[in-house]
Amino acid sequence: MTDSPPARPPLPSPRYFDDFAEGQVFAFGRIEVTEAEMLDFARRYDPQAIHLDKKAAAAGPFGGLILSGWHTAALMMRLFAEQVLDDASSLGSPGIDELRWLKPVRPGDTLSLRVTVEEARRSRSRPDRGMVRNYVEVLNQHGETVMSLKPMNLMRCRPPPA
Amino acid sequence: MTDSPPARPPLPSPRYFDDFAEGQVFAFGRIEVTEAEMLDFARRYDPQAIHLDKKAAAAGPFGGLILSGWHTAALMMRLFAEQVLDDASSLGSPGIDELRWLKPVRPGDTLSLRVTVEEARRSRSRPDRGMVRNYVEVLNQHGETVMSLKPMNLMRCRPPPA
Repeated sequence: MTDSPPARPPLPSPRYFDDFAEGQVFAFGRIEVTEAEMLDFARRYDPQAIHLDKKAAAAGPFGGLILSGWHTAALMMRLFAEQVLDDASSLGSPGIDELRWLKPVRPGDTLSLRVTVEEARRSRSRPDRGMVRNYVEVLNQHGETVMSLKPMNLMRCRPPPA
Repeated sequence: MTDSPPARPPLPSPRYFDDFAEGQVFAFGRIEVTEAEMLDFARRYDPQAIHLDKKAAAAGPFGGLILSGWHTAALMMRLFAEQVLDDASSLGSPGIDELRWLKPVRPGDTLSLRVTVEEARRSRSRPDRGMVRNYVEVLNQHGETVMSLKPMNLMRCRPPPA
């Protein structure tokens, strides 16, 4: 088991494009997955036996119930939205590359994030903003990477002092 | 506005790897997005002002509240899990490539799917299964693609007759 990462990354508040630099690594967060939440998400959005039916899941490829990969993604987003993005600067995301589900996530697991800034590029045509490309890993309580993805985020630059 | 796609793709039940062939296109489904569900998802998983705060969102980059992109993905998965995958054959997904959020989704929009089978490749090492790579487009009620992605799905082959 790895040391527990800190609750928050060392980012200022409010945060802008200028606060992200290539090569930075932030490890933070702590979110516990409950069985009730797993079942609620699966009933709404991913009603497969592997996420909902204990008996069928026990006989299935993962030997028990596992979270929907989209539920793991949503929990990742909870931490990312609260602690990396900021309403002061977030202009949305054009998308995600190379999303991988690497290991099953089960009820009782505790998830945290490791975010590596791969690219921070200011827009030439609109210099009040820039695109940040991160490599995001979702880790479980054993330090194993259960999911990874490369999201793009468009962010405003810090406004000049008035 | 395009014609409404049929509720279900023309796939047998149960479905196996053998039922997917490169070049097939399935257009189907109909799922309406409500404001209450948008707010509930955003509070749980993506608590940004753009998804939660009407006044702030109106002054923001999209001129009003829009769904979390992960909520659109979860609604896509609802249709995909129910109508493309099958508990008889689904062995999970290693991941997604090239997920793109192309246009905002707003409460009141109605979403459907268009699924194109890009590759269906039987496993050499384990010939009881194969990998299907689809190109999935999420369309709104105007026939516009609001999101696209390339998921991989591992599926069992149809068992030989007993």
